[in-house]
Amino acid sequence: MSKVKVNKVVVAYSGGLDTSVIIPWLKENYGCEVVAFVADVGQGEDELVGIEDKAMASGASEVYIADLKEEMVADYIYPTLKTGALYEGKYLLGTSMARPIIAKAQVECARKVGADALAHGCTGKGNDQVRFEGAFAALAPDLHVIAPWREWDLVSREQCLDYLAERNIPCTASLTKIYSRDANAWHISTEGGVLEDTWNAPNDDCWAWTNSPEAAPDEAEYVTLKVQKGEIVAVDGEELSPYQVLMNLNDKGVKHGVGRIDIVENRLVGMKSRGCYETPGGTIMMEALRAVEQLVLDKSSFEFREELGVKASHLVYDGRWFTPLCKSILAATEELAQDVNGEVVVKLYKGQVTATQKRSENSLYSEEFATFGEDEVYNQSHAEGFIRLYSLASRIRTLNAQKK
Amino acid sequence: MSKVKVNKVVVAYSGGLDTSVIIPWLKENYGCEVVAFVADVGQGEDELVGIEDKAMASGASEVYIADLKEEMVADYIYPTLKTGALYEGKYLLGTSMARPIIAKAQVECARKVGADALAHGCTGKGNDQVRFEGAFAALAPDLHVIAPWREWDLVSREQCLDYLAERNIPCTASLTKIYSRDANAWHISTEGGVLEDTWNAPNDDCWAWTNSPEAAPDEAEYVTLKVQKGEIVAVDGEELSPYQVLMNLNDKGVKHGVGRIDIVENRLVGMKSRGCYETPGGTIMMEALRAVEQLVLDKSSFEFREELGVKASHLVYDGRWFTPLCKSILAATEELAQDVNGEVVVKLYKGQVTATQKRSENSLYSEEFATFGEDEVYNQSHAEGFIRLYSLASRIRTLNAQKK
Amino acid sequence: MSKVKVNKVVVAYSGGLDTSVIIPWLKENYGCEVVAFVADVGQGEDELVGIEDKAMASGASEVYIADLKEEMVADYIYPTLKTGALYEGKYLLGTSMARPIIAKAQVECARKVGADALAHGCTGKGNDQVRFEGAFAALAPDLHVIAPWREWDLVSREQCLDYLAERNIPCTASLTKIYSRDANAWHISTEGGVLEDTWNAPNDDCWAWTNSPEAAPDEAEYVTLKVQKGEIVAVDGEELSPYQVLMNLNDKGVKHGVGRIDIVENRLVGMKSRGCYETPGGTIMMEALRAVEQLVLDKSSFEFREELGVKASHLVYDGRWFTPLCKSILAATEELAQDVNGEVVVKLYKGQVTATQKRSENSLYSEEFATFGEDEVYNQSHAEGFIRLYSLASRIRTLNAQKK
Amino acid sequence: MSKVKVNKVVVAYSGGLDTSVIIPWLKENYGCEVVAFVADVGQGEDELVGIEDKAMASGASEVYIADLKEEMVADYIYPTLKTGALYEGKYLLGTSMARPIIAKAQVECARKVGADALAHGCTGKGNDQVRFEGAFAALAPDLHVIAPWREWDLVSREQCLDYLAERNIPCTASLTKIYSRDANAWHISTEGGVLEDTWNAPNDDCWAWTNSPEAAPDEAEYVTLKVQKGEIVAVDGEELSPYQVLMNLNDKGVKHGVGRIDIVENRLVGMKSRGCYETPGGTIMMEALRAVEQLVLDKSSFEFREELGVKASHLVYDGRWFTPLCKSILAATEELAQDVNGEVVVKLYKGQVTATQKRSENSLYSEEFATFGEDEVYNQSHAEGFIRLYSLASRIRTLNAQKK
Repeated sequence: MSKVKVNKVVVAYSGGLDTSVIIPWLKENYGCEVVAFVADVGQGEDELVGIEDKAMASGASEVYIADLKEEMVADYIYPTLKTGALYEGKYLLGTSMARPIIAKAQVECARKVGADALAHGCTGKGNDQVRFEGAFAALAPDLHVIAPWREWDLVSREQCLDYLAERNIPCTASLTKIYSRDANAWHISTEGGVLEDTWNAPNDDCWAWTNSPEAAPDEAEYVTLKVQKGEIVAVDGEELSPYQVLMNLNDKGVKHGVGRIDIVENRLVGMKSRGCYETPGGTIMMEALRAVEQLVLDKSSFEFREELGVKASHLVYDGRWFTPLCKSILAATEELAQDVNGEVVVKLYKGQVTATQKRSENSLYSEEFATFGEDEVYNQSHAEGFIRLYSLASRIRTLNAQKK
Repeated sequence: MSKVKVNKVVVAYSGGLDTSVIIPWLKENYGCEVVAFVADVGQGEDELVGIEDKAMASGASEVYIADLKEEMVADYIYPTLKTGALYEGKYLLGTSMARPIIAKAQVECARKVGADALAHGCTGKGNDQVRFEGAFAALAPDLHVIAPWREWDLVSREQCLDYLAERNIPCTASLTKIYSRDANAWHISTEGGVLEDTWNAPNDDCWAWTNSPEAAPDEAEYVTLKVQKGEIVAVDGEELSPYQVLMNLNDKGVKHGVGRIDIVENRLVGMKSRGCYETPGGTIMMEALRAVEQLVLDKSSFEFREELGVKASHLVYDGRWFTPLCKSILAATEELAQDVNGEVVVKLYKGQVTATQKRSENSLYSEEFATFGEDEVYNQSHAEGFIRLYSLASRIRTLNAQKK
Repeated sequence: MSKVKVNKVVVAYSGGLDTSVIIPWLKENYGCEVVAFVADVGQGEDELVGIEDKAMASGASEVYIADLKEEMVADYIYPTLKTGALYEGKYLLGTSMARPIIAKAQVECARKVGADALAHGCTGKGNDQVRFEGAFAALAPDLHVIAPWREWDLVSREQCLDYLAERNIPCTASLTKIYSRDANAWHISTEGGVLEDTWNAPNDDCWAWTNSPEAAPDEAEYVTLKVQKGEIVAVDGEELSPYQVLMNLNDKGVKHGVGRIDIVENRLVGMKSRGCYETPGGTIMMEALRAVEQLVLDKSSFEFREELGVKASHLVYDGRWFTPLCKSILAATEELAQDVNGEVVVKLYKGQVTATQKRSENSLYSEEFATFGEDEVYNQSHAEGFIRLYSLASRIRTLNAQKK
Repeated sequence: MSKVKVNKVVVAYSGGLDTSVIIPWLKENYGCEVVAFVADVGQGEDELVGIEDKAMASGASEVYIADLKEEMVADYIYPTLKTGALYEGKYLLGTSMARPIIAKAQVECARKVGADALAHGCTGKGNDQVRFEGAFAALAPDLHVIAPWREWDLVSREQCLDYLAERNIPCTASLTKIYSRDANAWHISTEGGVLEDTWNAPNDDCWAWTNSPEAAPDEAEYVTLKVQKGEIVAVDGEELSPYQVLMNLNDKGVKHGVGRIDIVENRLVGMKSRGCYETPGGTIMMEALRAVEQLVLDKSSFEFREELGVKASHLVYDGRWFTPLCKSILAATEELAQDVNGEVVVKLYKGQVTATQKRSENSLYSEEFATFGEDEVYNQSHAEGFIRLYSLASRIRTLNAQKK
């Protein structure tokens, strides 16, 4: 396949081995200028320190670093959380939610530097390539997309290291890496190694952030969370920004071993994969928001929110953030979240988070109503009428059958 | 309201204070013979010992006891479990699933004794009256239904005890009872007392069966479960009947504090209530079945199963078991469960159950496929085509907008 | 049942026989002042002329007439139309959509006159009682609700006429009325008479507004409609308000026999009923909006809109307009309608409306794209990759089975 | 791309220009034996007469013709019809339903002749390639798939004709063909020509089978259909097989101009296309089945059937027939269809089919019930209780807000 003509490409640069190879590879294979774009989504100082120098050393002509941490929590994580989305019943979508925000900022960078192409370091068997390129298609279909992992013939870390060595590009990456990991403020994922056999339990090495439940404190910790319109705005009385809330709860969750899951999931590209995910703060946030919903949402609203949560989990996982369908679903769940105000106390203990206390100004539960004079709000005799009409079709069907 | 003319009524008799009052009350107010029907759904020996004598002493003309334990697990619990139903995201439907089977057996008893009416001891503010009467409407719309709690003017335990004392009917019930409880083999529920304020955390008294996570063993226990067509057929290598599986896992769950939930839920009759539920064995079974599903169900099947689970949770909760809609949904989930075979190891530890190992002959995950020659099953170059078509509408939409 | 104490009640007054009886009945039975509230929802001059005098003659202390025609089309009909709602696949919800707007204006009237109760003339077997009282519960739960048809013992037109005659209240209503009808700007419904046997075809009398297809012109008529954000803003080049559009298209639809349906439907109260509905303009509007959607909505958005349409049809039919769930669904469909701009030509011919031409600035269909250079937007070789990944799970499942 | 090694390929042969070219092309390019497989799905004698000779003349080593007409109606069309599937609200899925049955029979043919590859004549921009290859993946993932249109560089009819002429293969195909058509017993589709501009109305040439409404008889025709378990078993009293029913109703529909639609639809491969479809008999069958459902299905069953219909329409369109998801959905709708028995009279008149009379032994509508003694089945006073509980959450919410 002959390559398209490209002048300047913006690559989503992580500082890892693969994107370090991608920079010189793009220059050699496309004869183009390469701009490194670094998204700070809270992956941690380890990955960010010195990243500018590293990118330049790899041959980038420019490096842009965008701090997306607050925006990610406010504009991507909270809208998703309000839907209740848990992919395949378990996964809190940590990697999935980070991709559209990175892709969007990368496109903005490309516009600023006048690039005509975008590149990413995702492999050809994973979901992230679809998420990046789905975002690119929606935001910048006029830009070329280069996915080196689907083009080049490098197939091992050794070959990548050799590639850099041959070009005298410094690299501190190790020759072997057992697990494949992806981290941002929300979560860290771990794949590979012993996890490749689903009959293997995860071992201690499979967990990167959190204490094991066994190693967590023997004393439970209780945290009070204030919720407004489906978002947590204060922790133990301290008002915090969205990202600060997450950081605060991450610390607590890590300590108590909260937020570990081990799942075999269906990738969008048709195969299954197995991963361990740690989402310490996010798991606490999910429990807290659902607890306030218990007070506020009526029966049919709750059911609809559950249905939307299932749909949203697939949409977000599948990289369809920038679509009319996603906007429509988020509009629906945003509407439902308007009344989700209140306070929750959560208990953290040896791997578990449990909402133990909850209250809301919009609560439809109320002792006062429950003990209200019967004639005012609820009269037990009403139940008979309700039941008769509620079961009328059943009654007619069977009476009908009995006459035959 | 003048009462209908009734000759013989079959009452769902529990041996508790309220159904003990119902027997003489029915005789006095309807001038009819009263047959006591006792359903053994695994509520425990405490409630069943001497129940026949107690019913006769209360004035029943006959007592029928039906052992429904195996049938309940096989024909009500498993079909529901296969849907993945968790009412409002949490509740394993323990009380809900028991009602239709009791109602059905009660109707069969009524047919056998030639009764012309059915009675139950459910209050006028709860779900159970709808579940019983919904089943009666579907199974025996020709029989009268009497719901004493919606008719009489007894409003306290004291009045009920006085009622029995005045008639010299022996009763060992206590004057005060803080919590309202319902138990069967699957679960025990607790309402009332401190739970009436949602800002109160449940205290130790709110939990009837399970150890607290704190009191659970410091050592995890691992259990191996064999799954066939969405049902657990063996525990640690021992083949067991459905009810035996449940009993076995109940013991383990109780010990490790597994299966506690504390929820504010929407009742079908329009108000919210708060309850603590303990479903020790059931929680383990749910985790195990979902784990095998992770291996077996493809992406769109999994999503549909999740949607059906939401629907089924409401249907079962709402007492709509004997409806065409319920049959239709169960037919769909039964079909999906055909391939859900495999083995799971679950870890029980301080309130949590976690599937740590899983395998299935029908697994769509496979190391072998993952490492298969690319040209055989998955070729990375296929991904580009997939992504282009997958995101084509986004591309066209934005290209279109860019031209304006 | 002793009646609640009421000082002033606002009754939804239609001028028909039943609401004429309701006014004196309320005064006699509740000893209260009665204010007549008349909603002009386009039911026609026949029903409105002299209605003020008629109400006063029946004993009303005051009469309020509210012109709700434009508001009904703009704020109730269009939001519903955008969802695509067709109750049970057929019914355009004409009566259902009118109830919440009437109830809301009636509550506003009650607030203005300081009433403490609301009354309506709906029977106890229909949907409208639920729609009115559902709206009252959401908007004014502090006001008493009186439903005379469920209270009094009048059961025939003759008794109603006698009731008025005894009180010297003039009434021109006829003794017999074969069909029960409800009309507003959107539709007219007909029930009763020969329609009560579903094995009877509707006869000419069952249709009140429209020409029969047989009597419609032998020449088709073509109408050009301009659509903006899911609403029709011009007819044959003439810009019109929402209500004007409806009136204009009603005339055309009536002439060509468009918009007749004959349906057996499930009432919310559990029984089935059979009705003939005529929605001439609305049927044209539905066809036009759906036609523009064909151009604009992508596959998954279209599917979601269809799902929301099913949900909305039940919600609107069931009188749940003023609920969080309804707001949430309308927020979702409003979002999808943002791009639904374009022009449609519809053909009206002997009972049918067919969109024959359609175009949109937001069309995802485009000859230009279809014939675009393959490398730019669609490359046929991409299809292979798409198909391979799209069917990968099937492939793995069967390869797996073949190995056994 | 180097071609895979193939010994014997079975090609889905239609006798048209493209599949006539495919036979020699496969032999030359794959050096393999080519077996022609012809599926008789009711496309008509014109296409089948002499097809064996034609295939042999093109170079096929063997020709197999399978009569799939009855099986198609019984096992593919009826299950789909029971779901109520209408793709994007309009399309009766005529082409979509034929593909899986052809693919399945083609695979069976391949097994019989010991072929190691399958080929089809679908283009690279359409849905049919996905439907065929999706079925192949599910039924025979071990066989190679060859899609010549995605491989070769022939891009016009002229080139195809030249290709045959150069090889002295006789061909009667014309040089130009304005419309692209696909026919089977169920429908005929027409694409291309003037239809490529959505602002063009279809002209007379766009319709291949049916009379125009204008040319249809001025007299309506009434047909009585007997329905059992969701299938039509007799027409005007004559018991007929599934395929015979379809043929009978096709004749009637064609005469009266029934079953024309003109739609812009979303293809699975991401682009929109515009087509005219004629489904004369099928449109009558759909109306009849839906009419009996109106009598038989209760409210929530009807809503679920509608939801399943939306899902099924996408599944069938998308070629996912042989998937667990499709089986699950069909199991659900089959269950709902068990009671769909009855009789319907449909009126055919100038393009329209309307059910005018309907009855069912399982009807939940019944004059008898409607006029039943109130105390037996429906008591109007029950409505109050129903409404109070039904709207309780709204009441509590607003009472709560009013207190603030």
